[in-house]
Amino acid sequence: MTAPTMPTLLVLDADPPPRLGRLTGRARIVHTDEAGLAARLPEADVLLVWDFTSHAVREAWPGEGPRPRWVHTASAGVDHLMCPALAASGTVVTNARGVFDQPIAEYVAALVLAMAKDLPRTWEYQRQREWRHREALRVAGTRACVVGSGPIGRAIARTLKALGVTPALVGRTPRTGVHGPADLDRLLARADWVVAAAPLTDATRGMFDARRFGMMQPSARFINVGRGALVDEDALAEALSKRWIAGAALDVFTHEPLPPGSPLWRVPGLLVSPHMSGDTVGWRDELGAQFVELYERWAAGRPLVNVVDKSRGYVPGH
Amino acid sequence: MTAPTMPTLLVLDADPPPRLGRLTGRARIVHTDEAGLAARLPEADVLLVWDFTSHAVREAWPGEGPRPRWVHTASAGVDHLMCPALAASGTVVTNARGVFDQPIAEYVAALVLAMAKDLPRTWEYQRQREWRHREALRVAGTRACVVGSGPIGRAIARTLKALGVTPALVGRTPRTGVHGPADLDRLLARADWVVAAAPLTDATRGMFDARRFGMMQPSARFINVGRGALVDEDALAEALSKRWIAGAALDVFTHEPLPPGSPLWRVPGLLVSPHMSGDTVGWRDELGAQFVELYERWAAGRPLVNVVDKSRGYVPGH
Repeated sequence: MTAPTMPTLLVLDADPPPRLGRLTGRARIVHTDEAGLAARLPEADVLLVWDFTSHAVREAWPGEGPRPRWVHTASAGVDHLMCPALAASGTVVTNARGVFDQPIAEYVAALVLAMAKDLPRTWEYQRQREWRHREALRVAGTRACVVGSGPIGRAIARTLKALGVTPALVGRTPRTGVHGPADLDRLLARADWVVAAAPLTDATRGMFDARRFGMMQPSARFINVGRGALVDEDALAEALSKRWIAGAALDVFTHEPLPPGSPLWRVPGLLVSPHMSGDTVGWRDELGAQFVELYERWAAGRPLVNVVDKSRGYVPGH
Repeated sequence: MTAPTMPTLLVLDADPPPRLGRLTGRARIVHTDEAGLAARLPEADVLLVWDFTSHAVREAWPGEGPRPRWVHTASAGVDHLMCPALAASGTVVTNARGVFDQPIAEYVAALVLAMAKDLPRTWEYQRQREWRHREALRVAGTRACVVGSGPIGRAIARTLKALGVTPALVGRTPRTGVHGPADLDRLLARADWVVAAAPLTDATRGMFDARRFGMMQPSARFINVGRGALVDEDALAEALSKRWIAGAALDVFTHEPLPPGSPLWRVPGLLVSPHMSGDTVGWRDELGAQFVELYERWAAGRPLVNVVDKSRGYVPGH
């Protein structure tokens, strides 16, 4: 019987994650909703933030103390849980790095191609039974500026390159194949496609503002698959209505779900999707399996992977 | 003055083609519409079928006789002009091979990704201001069967492969990298994406019929960027309504433009576009330049390229 020393795994969820059955006998699993989080957190060895739309961790964080020793979020971004107390603590934070890369890259490619081929208008004409031939754009030979040089940004750049697009990656730290922030404005000004795939940090919040939309080409299209607050949404709506840029697609928003009354639903040239770019059939299963694997490392005393640099707000790396 | 021996170039068009100014002094250029075609054809040395939607050449063809010696069509398909008398004649037929390959490949990729990511439904929800998260499909790892092994089919296969799809090409003649007709049904039965990009000939007319839709996977999606008559449109509509397959996109139709009263506009799961897959900004210019280059070869007595095998109905080759 290992029960007395069995670690307590607290799971913040709405629907229970798959695959946790594999931890039977190796963890005492306690499920909680947002309301119960603060009471249970100090007794947890591990917190699994399965409901990654929740911001409850920040308010519920117990402050100084040894527990929980490890927090894992089933998301790439950690902005919803980071707070000064967590950052200052000894607690290790890990994320779901890797699970969303290829799906998000495909989603961006889908949006780029759909905009180049004017598919939204084609289907609008279909509803009206109108046959209206137009000239589409060729994607090969165009240029993209991908902001965010983590695995998601890199997968986006790789996928666009496979379609003949020339991508430029921009990250916080310039390195081989990655431009630093100093190059951003110059790259934005010549991009046909600007893709936001950066983590939300103090350095990136609101970075896509009126000034930056103003320097983009009138033919440019903007895509956000990172976090809503990277973008000044009012400025984007204005840039579209004034034709500073030719179109945009947002998969993420400052307030999610986007309220029915939001004007963003109806901005001409703006495509709205419900934060689903990374979520392909089987994703929950993959996220569950990823956590189980991390748990096994942790329980065995082996070093964790996907460890977030809490001062930066993302997993640093190549 | 070379005027007395200057060849007569008859151009069947609605809008005059660009770039023909470069033939000034080297061709006597006569423009005609469909009504005037039959009267002018016997005096033409060269016929440029610029209006590739016209079927007038078949009826107007002068029968036996030396002229025109060469017919060029500003399209990949030649089904709209081929007739027994033209096939039996000594007249050389050339097409616009090459111009449409990459644009059509991108268009197919756009449709594949849009269907995988369920974009049509996302934009339907946007109109209704509804936030409805769904799980999308991952394109990488899926299988495509591309029917038509000419440069367009090959460009489609190449582009899908760049997205991680495993493509199988099917052509009339099996060869390295290309399956023959004997493999078609087996490949259809396991494809996630079936793409029709074949020329319209006696061998391909109506090849996508109830039997073939019936053998596809319920999760399969069908895309036609070849010619409308490759498909039994009624059978496709039935296959969709009975959920034999999961979706389809048609860019070409038996009757174009698709009449407003056609039931195809409203078949659930069917995406309709107005024969524009190959037409990207600058395409008319490219078609004009391609013809001028061919004309220069022809006038200099050099062999033409893009020569159609009139018995097969397409340009043979790799």
